[in-house]
Amino acid sequence: MGFKKYLSSLKSYEAGKPIELIVRDYGVKEKAIIKLASNENPLGTSKRVIKIIKKEAKNSYRYPDDSMFELKTALAKKYNVDLNNVIIGQGSDQIIELLIKATSNKGDKILTSALTFAMYEIYATHNQAEIIKTKDGIHNAEQFIDEYKKSKPNLVFLCLPNNPLGDCLDKDEVFRILDSISSDTIVALDCAYGEFAAYKDKNKEIKPKEIIKKYKNCIYLGTFSKLYGLGGLRVGYGIADSKFIDLLSRLRAPFNITNISLKAATVALEDFRFVKDTLKNNFKEMEAYSEFAKNRNINFIESYTNFITFMLPKTIDSSILCEYLLKQGVIIRDLKSYGINAIRITIGTKKQNKIVIKLIDKYLKR
Amino acid sequence: MGFKKYLSSLKSYEAGKPIELIVRDYGVKEKAIIKLASNENPLGTSKRVIKIIKKEAKNSYRYPDDSMFELKTALAKKYNVDLNNVIIGQGSDQIIELLIKATSNKGDKILTSALTFAMYEIYATHNQAEIIKTKDGIHNAEQFIDEYKKSKPNLVFLCLPNNPLGDCLDKDEVFRILDSISSDTIVALDCAYGEFAAYKDKNKEIKPKEIIKKYKNCIYLGTFSKLYGLGGLRVGYGIADSKFIDLLSRLRAPFNITNISLKAATVALEDFRFVKDTLKNNFKEMEAYSEFAKNRNINFIESYTNFITFMLPKTIDSSILCEYLLKQGVIIRDLKSYGINAIRITIGTKKQNKIVIKLIDKYLKR
Repeated sequence: MGFKKYLSSLKSYEAGKPIELIVRDYGVKEKAIIKLASNENPLGTSKRVIKIIKKEAKNSYRYPDDSMFELKTALAKKYNVDLNNVIIGQGSDQIIELLIKATSNKGDKILTSALTFAMYEIYATHNQAEIIKTKDGIHNAEQFIDEYKKSKPNLVFLCLPNNPLGDCLDKDEVFRILDSISSDTIVALDCAYGEFAAYKDKNKEIKPKEIIKKYKNCIYLGTFSKLYGLGGLRVGYGIADSKFIDLLSRLRAPFNITNISLKAATVALEDFRFVKDTLKNNFKEMEAYSEFAKNRNINFIESYTNFITFMLPKTIDSSILCEYLLKQGVIIRDLKSYGINAIRITIGTKKQNKIVIKLIDKYLKR
Repeated sequence: MGFKKYLSSLKSYEAGKPIELIVRDYGVKEKAIIKLASNENPLGTSKRVIKIIKKEAKNSYRYPDDSMFELKTALAKKYNVDLNNVIIGQGSDQIIELLIKATSNKGDKILTSALTFAMYEIYATHNQAEIIKTKDGIHNAEQFIDEYKKSKPNLVFLCLPNNPLGDCLDKDEVFRILDSISSDTIVALDCAYGEFAAYKDKNKEIKPKEIIKKYKNCIYLGTFSKLYGLGGLRVGYGIADSKFIDLLSRLRAPFNITNISLKAATVALEDFRFVKDTLKNNFKEMEAYSEFAKNRNINFIESYTNFITFMLPKTIDSSILCEYLLKQGVIIRDLKSYGINAIRITIGTKKQNKIVIKLIDKYLKR
């Protein structure tokens, strides 16, 4: 028909099932649904953000300020960097897409861990680039260094912490990997869940300012979708050396962020109370899941994120368990499509977690 | 540094100056600024849209429904097509980007008129594709047919009506062009301003259903940024044969539209009163500009859009005129970067237009 032939072989991302779909397909009432499938913030949208959205609504007819001055200033202040060290994307997702486009075509290689964020591979296929994986799903510095030497990729993704497993490299190991990589290879540190890791363990904290000073080929990625509770507004960012940002920005489509999203993200960044409450709830409530797993002899990966991943025994099929929960109005993530018999549960509110644990328990006892 | 070499030669889109920038750079008070530079809706955001945004604000923590069921259903109903004939983009802009990516790499050609929407060429350069232009800026069916035969492009853009000039081909001419094009060439009918043309002259009305039935290689593009007053929310759409949509969708990034934008667009589509008021105001007020131009012997192109383009005589430099207006707090679009000594003015409210005309008049009399 005129399209490039490889398009017909491309696969799409499998998103967490949206609540609207469960209402439509399973007839469960919207209010009864518990969605712990997309690592959304269980505290919802912060009150300060709701207020600014309501105020900004009337300006929807206007195109956004494409310089994104206000949000870039807020981010630059937070990370103690300059405005020209910042690029804003439609979620950090879009920056991943830009990075792949800027570095990798047919014949080029991209290095990731064996089990990591699905969009690296999906965007790679959009550009017909090849994905090279380390042996393990869990990030392993030695494997990254060895595989880098062997396959000389154009681009490396470190997912810190790693979605959907929850593991996280120490900062020292990250620096060791970076030191082993040549300056003509781009490295992305995908820190979408980075604030959770840093809160739990200071050894996991990656400071963008340190990174961009030392590694001109490296970009730090952050998002407003998780900790800041703005998954629906699609805002992420990258921080790198100004030359890096200048080149990458040339592929950015103008007006890629809505004006409401720009305002909301700027306000969210300063809502320290909401951020603190989110982090506290997350790690307090994660204990309920890890306790349960221990009691039930279910393997789980120590998580530095806002989710926990249970590696299920052969006797429990992840897809059947997820389908069972779905019928009760509980949405979690089946990791079968990643090639493992595992489930990923977003840490919810105390009330939600109680219900989910009780339901899984009931299922196990059948 | 690891990026593809061609990146350093890429240019960015020059957007209409945002109000925030004028406030910052010229010290003009925000309330005093008249922005008629980006073809935004002068009636602002519709009240019904503001209401739904306020209602939806609290759901910002949730990822959007990536199936976009609700908005697709509304669009399918409006155009009397099926859900699988619809793709939603972050503005029709994003669909332009996808079309180029899906068809054109280095060595491939894209046909446009000599003076048309700047993003066709910008996205073409992102993919290192070559832009072939007809001789005239104003769309000319004969030239499109001849140039197509001569250069055999992979992709053709017809801008109907044409931005930034305002001209519009008759439907018959569009069909004549489509008939001359082989089914293995993709054709995009960019109808971002199509509703304005159809309102003014029925001979300009393009019906997506007719198009997709007859031409499987053709896509109709529409937007919520102009008539519907949602420029800041970034929603556009494409309508084509289901096979076409299926292939193109494989390159779409998930969650490319915010949940607020999805809700707002769905409501905007049914706000018939707002749409009618917009169209009426537009063509009534356009008369003030055409009258003024006639009286002042300024050439202008008959416009089928929500803007009017004045072709200035050599004695008036478009950039100097625009700078003069800017200092008075009036933002219009200088077309110097398109290679012509011309200005493009968005049709505003009666009050705005009076001020702008008076200021231009004052400038001419100096």
